Amino acid sequence: MSTTALVLVDIQQGLDDPWYGVRNNPDAETNASRLLSHWRATGQPVVHIQHLSTNPESPLFPGKPGVPHKPEVTPIDSEPVMQKHVNSGFIGTNLESWLREHGIDQVVIAGLTTNHCVETTTRMSGNLGFDTYLAHDACAAHNLVGPDGTNYTGEQVHTMSVANIASEFATVLSTDEVLARFV
Amino acid sequence: MSTTALVLVDIQQGLDDPWYGVRNNPDAETNASRLLSHWRATGQPVVHIQHLSTNPESPLFPGKPGVPHKPEVTPIDSEPVMQKHVNSGFIGTNLESWLREHGIDQVVIAGLTTNHCVETTTRMSGNLGFDTYLAHDACAAHNLVGPDGTNYTGEQVHTMSVANIASEFATVLSTDEVLARFV
Repeated sequence: MSTTALVLVDIQQGLDDPWYGVRNNPDAETNASRLLSHWRATGQPVVHIQHLSTNPESPLFPGKPGVPHKPEVTPIDSEPVMQKHVNSGFIGTNLESWLREHGIDQVVIAGLTTNHCVETTTRMSGNLGFDTYLAHDACAAHNLVGPDGTNYTGEQVHTMSVANIASEFATVLSTDEVLARFV
Repeated sequence: MSTTALVLVDIQQGLDDPWYGVRNNPDAETNASRLLSHWRATGQPVVHIQHLSTNPESPLFPGKPGVPHKPEVTPIDSEPVMQKHVNSGFIGTNLESWLREHGIDQVVIAGLTTNHCVETTTRMSGNLGFDTYLAHDACAAHNLVGPDGTNYTGEQVHTMSVANIASEFATVLSTDEVLARFV
């Protein structure tokens, strides 16, 4: 039987700041909270990733009120909080070594934002050899303006990100599907 | 003065196989070849990344005729060829240590395919702290069918991938702009 960690990425208050644009999927936090409650109830390991920006303009710059996790997913003492400064939860943290030391070879990933920190973490997780799952409806993305000026909605960005992740990097499931599978 | 490496990702014959779908940007190889000629002419370092698939169905499985590089970018003896088995050119290779040992802090990335191995390599390059550039018109993508059945064209996939890369991970330039900048 594999051990499966829930990795929650950057579910922080500052991500609500309009600085980031217009978001899709208002249910992301509720679904992430459902995952977290299930992981706690079943005694499976949970890791919280927390972004600390190096950009003083960012709502996630250290010391700003946006840095703490959202109340739906407030970490408890037994759950490691790994702080990072780039998109990937595997760079500048001990996430990989922590997972391997705890014999964890499967991870379920959810959080904010789909195309940035979630996707980068998920791509690396799959490429590092972890059996990787994405809870797509426990993620959300902001709109994105491309270098050619095209404005993609948060939903378009999210949906393409999920398609890319599903194509090569992870198994994409809904929160309901994750809850039924990892019991 | 920074040293800038050209990193060419998976420009291999097997990527022409219909197994991968329908591609955009038929000029990608010509533009990659222009970059390569310029890097050789100016004595700047070049790294070739070569994918060896672990999937026997893949045209890039070891021993298949699709594994060698395309003739436009055939490596020469002085240029390292780093073989990988996952999307990221930084995982399972010595790319990061090679760049750091050679005092290289800037990289220009191009190759195949935009949203898979190029994007994963580019995301990691930026996150690892390299000053990272993407030559967008020396890359190409195949169409992609999402988990909801939506078929995105190669051009849609490529364009969104470039937008994501430009938003957080690298400076996106055309081949002409790269040639003018890294002289």
